[in-house]
Amino acid sequence: MEIAFRRQSLLLKNLSTKTTRRSFASLPTSTQVISYTQTGNPQSVLKLETQPLPTLGNGQILVKFLASPINPADLNQIEGVYGVKAKLPAVGGNEGVAVVVASGSGVSKVQVNDHVIPSRPGLGTWRTYGVFNESDFQTVPKDVKPEYAATVSVNPSTALRLLDDFVNLKEGDVIIQNGANSMVGYSVLQIANARKIKTINVVRSRPDQTDVVERLKTLGGYVVVTDDYLTTPEFKKLVSDLPAPKLALNCIGGTTSTEFTRLLAPGGTMVTYGGMSRKPVTVPTSALIFKDIQLRGFWLTKWLEQHPQEDRTKMLNSLFEMIKKDQLKLWIEDWKFSKFQQALQRVNEPYRDRKVVLTMNE
Amino acid sequence: MEIAFRRQSLLLKNLSTKTTRRSFASLPTSTQVISYTQTGNPQSVLKLETQPLPTLGNGQILVKFLASPINPADLNQIEGVYGVKAKLPAVGGNEGVAVVVASGSGVSKVQVNDHVIPSRPGLGTWRTYGVFNESDFQTVPKDVKPEYAATVSVNPSTALRLLDDFVNLKEGDVIIQNGANSMVGYSVLQIANARKIKTINVVRSRPDQTDVVERLKTLGGYVVVTDDYLTTPEFKKLVSDLPAPKLALNCIGGTTSTEFTRLLAPGGTMVTYGGMSRKPVTVPTSALIFKDIQLRGFWLTKWLEQHPQEDRTKMLNSLFEMIKKDQLKLWIEDWKFSKFQQALQRVNEPYRDRKVVLTMNE
Repeated sequence: MEIAFRRQSLLLKNLSTKTTRRSFASLPTSTQVISYTQTGNPQSVLKLETQPLPTLGNGQILVKFLASPINPADLNQIEGVYGVKAKLPAVGGNEGVAVVVASGSGVSKVQVNDHVIPSRPGLGTWRTYGVFNESDFQTVPKDVKPEYAATVSVNPSTALRLLDDFVNLKEGDVIIQNGANSMVGYSVLQIANARKIKTINVVRSRPDQTDVVERLKTLGGYVVVTDDYLTTPEFKKLVSDLPAPKLALNCIGGTTSTEFTRLLAPGGTMVTYGGMSRKPVTVPTSALIFKDIQLRGFWLTKWLEQHPQEDRTKMLNSLFEMIKKDQLKLWIEDWKFSKFQQALQRVNEPYRDRKVVLTMNE
Repeated sequence: MEIAFRRQSLLLKNLSTKTTRRSFASLPTSTQVISYTQTGNPQSVLKLETQPLPTLGNGQILVKFLASPINPADLNQIEGVYGVKAKLPAVGGNEGVAVVVASGSGVSKVQVNDHVIPSRPGLGTWRTYGVFNESDFQTVPKDVKPEYAATVSVNPSTALRLLDDFVNLKEGDVIIQNGANSMVGYSVLQIANARKIKTINVVRSRPDQTDVVERLKTLGGYVVVTDDYLTTPEFKKLVSDLPAPKLALNCIGGTTSTEFTRLLAPGGTMVTYGGMSRKPVTVPTSALIFKDIQLRGFWLTKWLEQHPQEDRTKMLNSLFEMIKKDQLKLWIEDWKFSKFQQALQRVNEPYRDRKVVLTMNE
């Protein structure tokens, strides 16, 4: 379904300065949302429901969503175990791409037909339509396909920050990461690759590991191993000609992260940005004292709070550039919005590594 | 025994440019050393023996030791578990103070009768006499008593670096430390106190804890608690009016260090400089990600390698200033050099918190 509303508010504003609100007869008056009134197991507490849409206020836009991913942090938030609690009742989802359908008076930065993504988390992106303040969204290039635009602002952005903000990496340097087949992991690998930084990619042992290893190699992974291989003499041999990693990226916790502190070069840094194993990070005191290893953490939400919008726009633009140059591919599977329960089930399948994205064009 | 040799080498050098070596008939020709030929349990492998002294070479000095402490790192080195291995056979000890007895030709920075301390670790300070290169030592003020001069360059220096190098602390800020009754701990407390930084001091539960707590309070500790008190609601009440600590100093590892990552302010740093419990440091991933806690390590040996001598001299001078102003007291007990076996035994006693120092003036 194509969207062809034209923005008229600026014109009307010129005719009458009193016009601060504008309603369009042909605009949708309701939206479908995936919402919850209490925290808990997402499959139990999330409901698909229809909500009325408010009329467009001054400085507001009406958007139609095209695609919104289901990120682990979205589910943690619904479970009530995330660093940011949602104000209940809430609509799920923090990321997505939408097209501007109409704009109220006083809207200046966004035009009808623009593709836009949320400029902050917490908007509730698992919905078909929504009325928001203009400042809640920012435009993205229309020639980036919706599933990519919908998913670039969390995982690939995290990957870029992990590579840019902690260690000064140059061509030929080595980094190591676990959860390499997550969307952050795939993005880290590809961005590092574009910069000629070598990656050691660790994935969990799993039934379809040949596929995963093959995919990571095809994308440019320099070394790809399963976690149980990490402590073997064969692994030592495999990386014997490489400099020790300056940076370790950890989204798992537990034994792999401890092993990373042993593998890091003296003065190296391990950045934790996730804890999929739900186990803490344990580091021998000798690694801290004698090897001067640093342990840091990264949370994109905090980064966004602490940086002006321009920094984010610059970051997104550099990712869009990479996407256009085919240097950054995202590993996605589409699920119809109406089938969100099946999509949730799919997210919980143990060896899925494509990002599950809800699409609203049915 | 007072030392009254006069330095004559420069005079001699003026008389004959060929004089590069000079022997003094009245100088000692042998020294007692506490040495070891293999790593292992210090009480088994260390032997008191007499070794001949070499004659003074060009640029060399003969020193008589006055006092040398037994530091945990000295023992770890003898056990073979330290970050720096000694070249065997070796003389124990890395810290101490000596008086210059004689100097060879070409010596320019150090004079006979100067009090000197090693300018680098690894010289073997558990000895009565030694011949060293002039550059191996640097002068210290004579009005600082030997036991203080002997112990200032490791523990109090570490304390100063821990407070200066990781977090920008200002008046009214709070820090937390375990092993508060170690010499580093006492020094941290007193230096922080002089800067009006509040300290939360944690010690192990122990039979004589009332004494220890009293001593830490007398020295200026703002809060003093045992480790088992740290997780109680009473502790929360005790510190409820204080800002959360910006800096945690850990020399123990294990559960206390995990608790520190929970108590730290968002963005706070925990610096590990010891691992007395021999347990690793475990940190919940949420503390790294959502609270942005940083884990760092500190090792004075590395710091000395990476900084010019001037930086060390500046650091020592600021400590000597504090000692002279009575802002920094060191908690020491003297043991005669010849009784080193008993001194070693004393070091291993569980609830000792005075620094054991060997004194050579008998």
